[in-house]
Amino acid sequence: MSGFTDLGYARVDTDRESRQGLPEVVYGPGKQPAEITGIVTELLGRSTGPVLVTRVEPDVAAQVRVPGGTYDETARLLVWRPAAPGSFRVCVATAGTSDWPVAAESEAVASAIGLSTTVVRDVGVAGIHRLMAAQDDLAQADAVIVVAGMEGALASAVGGLVACPVIAVPTSTGYGAAMEGVTALLAMLTSCAAGLTVVNIDSGFSAAMAAHRLAAVAHR
Amino acid sequence: MSGFTDLGYARVDTDRESRQGLPEVVYGPGKQPAEITGIVTELLGRSTGPVLVTRVEPDVAAQVRVPGGTYDETARLLVWRPAAPGSFRVCVATAGTSDWPVAAESEAVASAIGLSTTVVRDVGVAGIHRLMAAQDDLAQADAVIVVAGMEGALASAVGGLVACPVIAVPTSTGYGAAMEGVTALLAMLTSCAAGLTVVNIDSGFSAAMAAHRLAAVAHR
Amino acid sequence: MSGFTDLGYARVDTDRESRQGLPEVVYGPGKQPAEITGIVTELLGRSTGPVLVTRVEPDVAAQVRVPGGTYDETARLLVWRPAAPGSFRVCVATAGTSDWPVAAESEAVASAIGLSTTVVRDVGVAGIHRLMAAQDDLAQADAVIVVAGMEGALASAVGGLVACPVIAVPTSTGYGAAMEGVTALLAMLTSCAAGLTVVNIDSGFSAAMAAHRLAAVAHR
Amino acid sequence: MSGFTDLGYARVDTDRESRQGLPEVVYGPGKQPAEITGIVTELLGRSTGPVLVTRVEPDVAAQVRVPGGTYDETARLLVWRPAAPGSFRVCVATAGTSDWPVAAESEAVASAIGLSTTVVRDVGVAGIHRLMAAQDDLAQADAVIVVAGMEGALASAVGGLVACPVIAVPTSTGYGAAMEGVTALLAMLTSCAAGLTVVNIDSGFSAAMAAHRLAAVAHR
Amino acid sequence: MSGFTDLGYARVDTDRESRQGLPEVVYGPGKQPAEITGIVTELLGRSTGPVLVTRVEPDVAAQVRVPGGTYDETARLLVWRPAAPGSFRVCVATAGTSDWPVAAESEAVASAIGLSTTVVRDVGVAGIHRLMAAQDDLAQADAVIVVAGMEGALASAVGGLVACPVIAVPTSTGYGAAMEGVTALLAMLTSCAAGLTVVNIDSGFSAAMAAHRLAAVAHR
Amino acid sequence: MSGFTDLGYARVDTDRESRQGLPEVVYGPGKQPAEITGIVTELLGRSTGPVLVTRVEPDVAAQVRVPGGTYDETARLLVWRPAAPGSFRVCVATAGTSDWPVAAESEAVASAIGLSTTVVRDVGVAGIHRLMAAQDDLAQADAVIVVAGMEGALASAVGGLVACPVIAVPTSTGYGAAMEGVTALLAMLTSCAAGLTVVNIDSGFSAAMAAHRLAAVAHR
Amino acid sequence: MSGFTDLGYARVDTDRESRQGLPEVVYGPGKQPAEITGIVTELLGRSTGPVLVTRVEPDVAAQVRVPGGTYDETARLLVWRPAAPGSFRVCVATAGTSDWPVAAESEAVASAIGLSTTVVRDVGVAGIHRLMAAQDDLAQADAVIVVAGMEGALASAVGGLVACPVIAVPTSTGYGAAMEGVTALLAMLTSCAAGLTVVNIDSGFSAAMAAHRLAAVAHR
Amino acid sequence: MSGFTDLGYARVDTDRESRQGLPEVVYGPGKQPAEITGIVTELLGRSTGPVLVTRVEPDVAAQVRVPGGTYDETARLLVWRPAAPGSFRVCVATAGTSDWPVAAESEAVASAIGLSTTVVRDVGVAGIHRLMAAQDDLAQADAVIVVAGMEGALASAVGGLVACPVIAVPTSTGYGAAMEGVTALLAMLTSCAAGLTVVNIDSGFSAAMAAHRLAAVAHR
Repeated sequence: MSGFTDLGYARVDTDRESRQGLPEVVYGPGKQPAEITGIVTELLGRSTGPVLVTRVEPDVAAQVRVPGGTYDETARLLVWRPAAPGSFRVCVATAGTSDWPVAAESEAVASAIGLSTTVVRDVGVAGIHRLMAAQDDLAQADAVIVVAGMEGALASAVGGLVACPVIAVPTSTGYGAAMEGVTALLAMLTSCAAGLTVVNIDSGFSAAMAAHRLAAVAHR
Repeated sequence: MSGFTDLGYARVDTDRESRQGLPEVVYGPGKQPAEITGIVTELLGRSTGPVLVTRVEPDVAAQVRVPGGTYDETARLLVWRPAAPGSFRVCVATAGTSDWPVAAESEAVASAIGLSTTVVRDVGVAGIHRLMAAQDDLAQADAVIVVAGMEGALASAVGGLVACPVIAVPTSTGYGAAMEGVTALLAMLTSCAAGLTVVNIDSGFSAAMAAHRLAAVAHR
Repeated sequence: MSGFTDLGYARVDTDRESRQGLPEVVYGPGKQPAEITGIVTELLGRSTGPVLVTRVEPDVAAQVRVPGGTYDETARLLVWRPAAPGSFRVCVATAGTSDWPVAAESEAVASAIGLSTTVVRDVGVAGIHRLMAAQDDLAQADAVIVVAGMEGALASAVGGLVACPVIAVPTSTGYGAAMEGVTALLAMLTSCAAGLTVVNIDSGFSAAMAAHRLAAVAHR
Repeated sequence: MSGFTDLGYARVDTDRESRQGLPEVVYGPGKQPAEITGIVTELLGRSTGPVLVTRVEPDVAAQVRVPGGTYDETARLLVWRPAAPGSFRVCVATAGTSDWPVAAESEAVASAIGLSTTVVRDVGVAGIHRLMAAQDDLAQADAVIVVAGMEGALASAVGGLVACPVIAVPTSTGYGAAMEGVTALLAMLTSCAAGLTVVNIDSGFSAAMAAHRLAAVAHR
Repeated sequence: MSGFTDLGYARVDTDRESRQGLPEVVYGPGKQPAEITGIVTELLGRSTGPVLVTRVEPDVAAQVRVPGGTYDETARLLVWRPAAPGSFRVCVATAGTSDWPVAAESEAVASAIGLSTTVVRDVGVAGIHRLMAAQDDLAQADAVIVVAGMEGALASAVGGLVACPVIAVPTSTGYGAAMEGVTALLAMLTSCAAGLTVVNIDSGFSAAMAAHRLAAVAHR
Repeated sequence: MSGFTDLGYARVDTDRESRQGLPEVVYGPGKQPAEITGIVTELLGRSTGPVLVTRVEPDVAAQVRVPGGTYDETARLLVWRPAAPGSFRVCVATAGTSDWPVAAESEAVASAIGLSTTVVRDVGVAGIHRLMAAQDDLAQADAVIVVAGMEGALASAVGGLVACPVIAVPTSTGYGAAMEGVTALLAMLTSCAAGLTVVNIDSGFSAAMAAHRLAAVAHR
Repeated sequence: MSGFTDLGYARVDTDRESRQGLPEVVYGPGKQPAEITGIVTELLGRSTGPVLVTRVEPDVAAQVRVPGGTYDETARLLVWRPAAPGSFRVCVATAGTSDWPVAAESEAVASAIGLSTTVVRDVGVAGIHRLMAAQDDLAQADAVIVVAGMEGALASAVGGLVACPVIAVPTSTGYGAAMEGVTALLAMLTSCAAGLTVVNIDSGFSAAMAAHRLAAVAHR
Repeated sequence: MSGFTDLGYARVDTDRESRQGLPEVVYGPGKQPAEITGIVTELLGRSTGPVLVTRVEPDVAAQVRVPGGTYDETARLLVWRPAAPGSFRVCVATAGTSDWPVAAESEAVASAIGLSTTVVRDVGVAGIHRLMAAQDDLAQADAVIVVAGMEGALASAVGGLVACPVIAVPTSTGYGAAMEGVTALLAMLTSCAAGLTVVNIDSGFSAAMAAHRLAAVAHR
């Protein structure tokens, strides 16, 4: 048993589900629609859980020929066989309205892989009473995903308020000194709030997957 | 009740323990021994859990006058009232021998705040059979802290093997293109293994605190 | 009238006081004690206001031979003829204890040039109730100087609370992704709180001088 | 009273006007026309002062359906209920003709929020007599906003001439070593003229808002 | 004999084949179709080996009027007089499907200049059993070209498994902290596997040419 | 006499010709065709020498309505009243064919302002005999402008061969580690050949203007 | 058989020699003398080839207690059981005298692992006739290691002259724009000479190990 | 005639004087005193002009055993056989007192190689009347070397005033956003004053050598 299927253009990791509880998630950019079709078909046949393709543009999504999938344009996500909501609760909080597409990816991926999600939007620290009003939502979560661009200060503020894991997602929102998200990334990494963790710029996907790992442990 | 004590040079967050399950951890650099003494005394009096001071050099540690503390020179850590080991198991894995001081901080902080720890040292991917031999240690952990410098590839390798949360700590080990740890940091953030999270360069402390947040949820 | 005195090693700008309301402030690094002595003597003779030398190390300060000066070791500041406190009130707020030396320079320069100062220390956003408790101090200020390292989130939080000018001073406190203060600098420049302004890393001096310009206008 | 209105896609900070003397200014990028419409409508109903949306492209502006607004294409600014000119005088100075769009945003925002503005264009230091000829304009201002790209030397030159606050706006004018405005930004931050303050690259808006904070204090 | 032909717009290095065993390879970007036509014609007339033009877009390729050439759209490569496969075996391994265009250039150039090539695709370390299954392919190669983006960890893993030369090609696959390939580049340069060498980002061409130099020595 | 004409959108430096021997050269980007028209008309009326506008795209050039001008599309240069060739000889040398547009700007500007120019193209160090064959051309020049991208090694090679001034122009030719010309820029600044000077990336214009300053001195 | 020995502080890769033809080379920095002693002892007992420790400072070297070793202070290298010189010839060429320590490491490691070495020093391109005079030495080599700092142009020049593999080692020689070796690194990666490969800054060791891989193939 | 002497540790370029009018200048860092002694002895014997060693620390200078040399501690320069002052006049201008060591190197090298020098110190743009007062000194120069750190604005101001060549030397004076001289470097490269040229950070030597090249042409 090799644990993978060699399609020539891809070695599909069919062992992933048994190893990590979830079929391999397909990274869309740079793949032809026919390649996505082939990989998804293989994953659907060789596993039982949800199958996802991320960062898919609408024109590519339209060319992927596999029955039963749904496409979320804001999240740029293709999903087959979404999981039912589980008991692990994730709260996705955004600093500003402009951070929504990244948060949407996080929320959509988390939902598709079986996490229960809530969303709190536009609670940036420039009007900190908006965050304070959301404290109940935050307190009920098992993990908070903070999505923020510019200076990313929301991650520190949330990190100081809650006891649960905080996964910070820097976004490329902003201009000039925002440095395409690098400033938020570095700021979140040096947060004065202890125990925050950080994922790649604009990677709502990574934060959801990190939450999936948390849920795996919480369920033990 | 203000939730803090104003010592003039510091506003000690005496509310932290009730909010986050652990007294404020003191960041040592830039503080005078007398200031550390004052803050630690206040924390010991206003809380019941472990009190820690991080990144303390030996000469400073020697001048902190509070009974009952212990000093770990490798981890540069001062601890009062360490917690008893709990049920949450953290495995600290290092890529090379030179990463040990950062891993030691992670291990020492994790132990002091009540996590059960194991250590796997020197399992870098240049001899990947060494990592394969450690798979049982990794499989039994509730979270893995991966400590690696240079190109930080160990985080990706571990991330692909385990299902539990992986917290990656880039270190400043290496020279030239290692860029004082920035290369490992960026590499870990763009890992092809999904759902890794990352903390600041050389911050064994942050990884242990992130594990503490995980344990808080796992215990719910 | 040339408006300056040419000492060979320096052209002392004796016109500065009439042009900007304050004698030239001397930048200490790279100057010999004898050069500082010469420049200060010239400034004392050609102007009537306070004369300052910044960033002077103790061994250099000890070799500057001009009667009537005082040296502040924390602020690394030499002062002759300090001004009496005026009506313009500046509040210097720091995120952490480790930011104190930079804040001390800001406070000492501001005091020496005739501003009324108050200090609020250690109100970082990881325990945001500490900042909330300082709102009265902030509200009474004509300008707030926020001194913060690491991710510099305090500037955004303060910027959202007060209506007066906020001058943000990033500090080199922190390590790794703090990038010697560059992260705080960039974060403050991209703050979601509108109308903040920023000065150079670790430049408590610049913030005080910016406040001096504000006072000049407020007094019109 | 929560101090905000939750529209789902945005938490409108309706408390901002009482806290800071001006309704929340809306950041346009990343928002749908319908979202801008909703937020502006809410702000107009819950406050009395000017309502602004920044960085709005013409095609988006055309789709915002709220009566009474005007659109300035150069400044990319939407304004409702502009304030009458107040007594605080701001002079906007540009180094070159190519810096005009950023200066235009600064001037338009400043006018809309009740500051009196004058403009001095194209006074870069390569022909410094042009700046010298503008000294009267500068001397009558309560604050000078200096807008300059490339090496940004105009900020230093102006900073040495006037006693009032100088707010420097680096622009992305130039190429190669201009580094999209980073060079001007860094240069302004290290200016040899004391007490300059700096805002984000190309952020004419931030400079105007900083001037608003100055005016608030000058009026006390 | 000058060793070159001066076409005005180019000095064609007609001596290259005798000096390095291969005619000059033409770098396509920035050259007009007529210029490419002229240079290729000259090279075909003055040498006997394969003539290549790299990084040619389809519209440019269509305008190059020299009989006998073939165009590979994925590799963006024009070839005249390809060499027969020699005894030196190169294995091109990719971390992910998205790295294929760069690997395709490497494979196509290597084939055209007379190296024997095999390809192993999609063996990234997130599912390391896929790499382990390819060990035979790797073991039979005289050199391995590793093509990987994101964190580039595949280079370290391969470098630890094989004894032959490993040429690492970082790709610009990925986003955010992938920094357009800089992260993979730096990571490969600091690999814990000894004796790897690295070429420019996305330069499948350079890796193939480095392999050509290896073959030259192996044939001695 | 103010020494400039204030057109509102520009302060034309009419004193420049008497001060520096050449009318102000107009920087095209960011200027409206009508603005260019106005400035050029003013310069033609107030000075006697050549009038140039740089970096003008064809569509803008077509809208500039001033009789007597010529437009060079490769150099993106508009010229009125070009000077007759003088005795100062400038040799423009390029490393590769792709560097030509930048070299063309240098050559066109130099010619327009009265320098005698020769061009040597495609003499990069990968085939150093091509450079050696050009030594006579180089030896007869009063200054050499070296235009090179990628690693910019041609500047060092030329700098070691000739005794006259060498002005190095880094170009953005190349990809990946070429860093849009930054690599060539830094390389030229640290050349082991003593006494090279460097101008901005892709600035053929600056090099020509630097040569104009040389000619001014040589003619004394 | 696990293929490694677990010493607690290190997992010694005892399988390396059979896998790659050379025992694991020990990276010295960050290791205690006792740790080096333990690892070296283990390697000597479990393998038959040369055992090396790199980057060892003299005071550490003096504390390593294993008989039979020699220490090269310039190369900072400890060696036990050096190999006899083999048939593969490596030429180490340096651009300047200041690059010698890095070249010395390369030469010493290469010699110790059984390569035949020659050295050509101080052939930088500022006096290119010095390089031309060394062409015979270069032509007889099976591989050339080029060690150069500052702008690193020597790599391009050598790459254009020889047909064999060229391994470029950037050094941190130089100041300012040399950027601690980053400039040479980037320059070498973008060399106009095709097929160069590059290793980490100051890593004479890596270049020697890359040559070892070449020799392994040449011997097949 | 090889044109160089091979001393083993150095290939002394004895042809340099005939090629470029000046013996090779020795770069001191990284060379042993005995090596400097050997190279200088060779240069004195094989040429007739001045022999210089740059960047020599006092303890090294004291160990160089060649009769007839002088050592300038501020300039860190060793000189044998200085040239008599020629007719080419160089003015070295500094922005601040702290820039003096770099300017001193420039002045000392220029004097030693036969240029006539004047110095104008401390004319930074914060008090621009100081520069205006120096216009006569500037006007009489054949070339101006501008030495400035921080934001380097002096180069632009001087560039706009004089017609002769301006060689800008950025210095590492300043802190934080001064970025060790990178800010001044980039600012000078993007100066709005046309035709400036720039040399490496802190390289007073390079500027003097560039002036030497100018003098060579002026003397034709």
